[in-house]
Amino acid sequence: MQLALYETRGAEPHTRIACVDRPTPAPGAGEVLLELLAAPINPSDVLTITGQYGALPPLPAVGGNEGVGRVAALGEGVTGVAIGDWALLPVGGGTWASHIVVKAAALMRVPAGGDPLQMAMLTVNPPTASLLLSEFVALNAGDWVLQNAANSGVGEYVIQLAKARGLHTVSVVRRADAVAPLEALGGDVVLVDGPDLAARVAEATGKAKIRLALDAVGGTATDRLAQTVAIGGTVVNYGAMSGEACKVAPGSFVFRNVTLRGFWLAFWFREASPAQQQALFGDLAQRIARGELATRVHATFPLSRVQEAVALAAAGGRQGKVLLTPG
Amino acid sequence: MQLALYETRGAEPHTRIACVDRPTPAPGAGEVLLELLAAPINPSDVLTITGQYGALPPLPAVGGNEGVGRVAALGEGVTGVAIGDWALLPVGGGTWASHIVVKAAALMRVPAGGDPLQMAMLTVNPPTASLLLSEFVALNAGDWVLQNAANSGVGEYVIQLAKARGLHTVSVVRRADAVAPLEALGGDVVLVDGPDLAARVAEATGKAKIRLALDAVGGTATDRLAQTVAIGGTVVNYGAMSGEACKVAPGSFVFRNVTLRGFWLAFWFREASPAQQQALFGDLAQRIARGELATRVHATFPLSRVQEAVALAAAGGRQGKVLLTPG
Repeated sequence: MQLALYETRGAEPHTRIACVDRPTPAPGAGEVLLELLAAPINPSDVLTITGQYGALPPLPAVGGNEGVGRVAALGEGVTGVAIGDWALLPVGGGTWASHIVVKAAALMRVPAGGDPLQMAMLTVNPPTASLLLSEFVALNAGDWVLQNAANSGVGEYVIQLAKARGLHTVSVVRRADAVAPLEALGGDVVLVDGPDLAARVAEATGKAKIRLALDAVGGTATDRLAQTVAIGGTVVNYGAMSGEACKVAPGSFVFRNVTLRGFWLAFWFREASPAQQQALFGDLAQRIARGELATRVHATFPLSRVQEAVALAAAGGRQGKVLLTPG
Repeated sequence: MQLALYETRGAEPHTRIACVDRPTPAPGAGEVLLELLAAPINPSDVLTITGQYGALPPLPAVGGNEGVGRVAALGEGVTGVAIGDWALLPVGGGTWASHIVVKAAALMRVPAGGDPLQMAMLTVNPPTASLLLSEFVALNAGDWVLQNAANSGVGEYVIQLAKARGLHTVSVVRRADAVAPLEALGGDVVLVDGPDLAARVAEATGKAKIRLALDAVGGTATDRLAQTVAIGGTVVNYGAMSGEACKVAPGSFVFRNVTLRGFWLAFWFREASPAQQQALFGDLAQRIARGELATRVHATFPLSRVQEAVALAAAGGRQGKVLLTPG
């Protein structure tokens, strides 16, 4: 089997990881052997290798945090699971591996036969998008949501999930060539960021009172969201694409009663009950299987080319996700 | 009578205001004439003249937003009020005036005979301090509160009100010579701000979980509070002494679940019932009259020297408030 392994953390993450060969494990009693179908490279995966993420596994570590696999072998006493079934790779487990053994009791099966690249991205970005829309402000159909970095994976899921809930979206991007794809995806208003953002959003939405904004950029981009939301509005930061601190003028907090919060899926995993998790992932898996929920794929690489894949994922200017596949 | 009047807004606020003479008004039926005892110059007053505040009165405008006066004459039909009674000057009314006519029904009397300078500062900073401690995080006796700009008026009231509620305070200042006066006032831990703030606070408090921090500085000082509060803690911004945007690394929001909010007393005034307002101001007036709640006075000036007074209030490096008195 192949593993994408790193033994040190720091800058230039693609130089720290390499594909190594190991003996393929056999599933023990009550276990199942999954073989990789696909696993994405998320920003959090890159930050875990650089050491900038909020939780860091002990070294050496296998990269990756999610993916989808196919049941390749069953251990003794496993029932109710068939060779060929699809299942999620264990979240947080180091998923950039051609094979992985999991306990049959913990297996999270998903509908087989769809696009494995899309299903591989189920567990990180779609629940983030869904929870950003539900956990901070009680929104009603017809309400508007504002987001930046809208051409990220989360951003694209936000557009689709918001539409499914009857919400309208203002999507802010940093490049003019990112506008058309998001409009095609169903974005109601798509704008390029700039100092006059609040005025342009007011014009495009008929001065809608926007109570929720999602920030994955930081720096002065956070300030522009804080200036754009209504009095009493909430800005939720969940990323730092600019690499800068969130900057917000005190006037937005004091005179406009804006709240700035953060979201980390790891906290939700710790606190949500298994039933809550199953409900959310079940719903999202169905939407992905039906092709209603998808994000763009920029490129796929076999595990053997993990260094190229990480370098590309860490760079800007992509049009979608980078994923790893077997081989 | 004398009025401190300004007709333009902008930089160099002391050059925009001047003391002018006007005929002293007579109280009409149901009205009372108050003569000034004292009125402070708060940061919000300076920002109102520079045009940086969240609410700006039409021009020309009388400076000032609070103060205390003495009943000097009664209009026809006024009962239950006596010449010599003390009352608050109307909040938001332009209080830098030697005389002001108010409706007897709206008169907010306070205990007479104490220090008029302290009573003059009742309506802005003490309720801000009190509400900062009560409106954001449910604190219990023994809990810690962290604040910067702790040698401001609000900061000194926070130390005293926190102690009265059984809370402990960590007070952060920007000058070494500001430490001793706050310790004398009852501050439990008083530290000079710096990059290692979180570590020094942890050491000084025995690693207390601090759930509430109060920020009146902005810039990277906000980040240091966000790094110092416990996971899930709240930072409340209510000022901008640094003149900079609040800067907070996304990691504090995302990985430490910190919330950043704002406080503006004007919002509270709009939403609090008369009974709530009376309860809060009654309690604070008693504490001030008993000498339990006080802030330091740097200097007083007669109204005729309002330009000097505003220049001093707008400058840094003071040891207490600047107030205006009659003359």
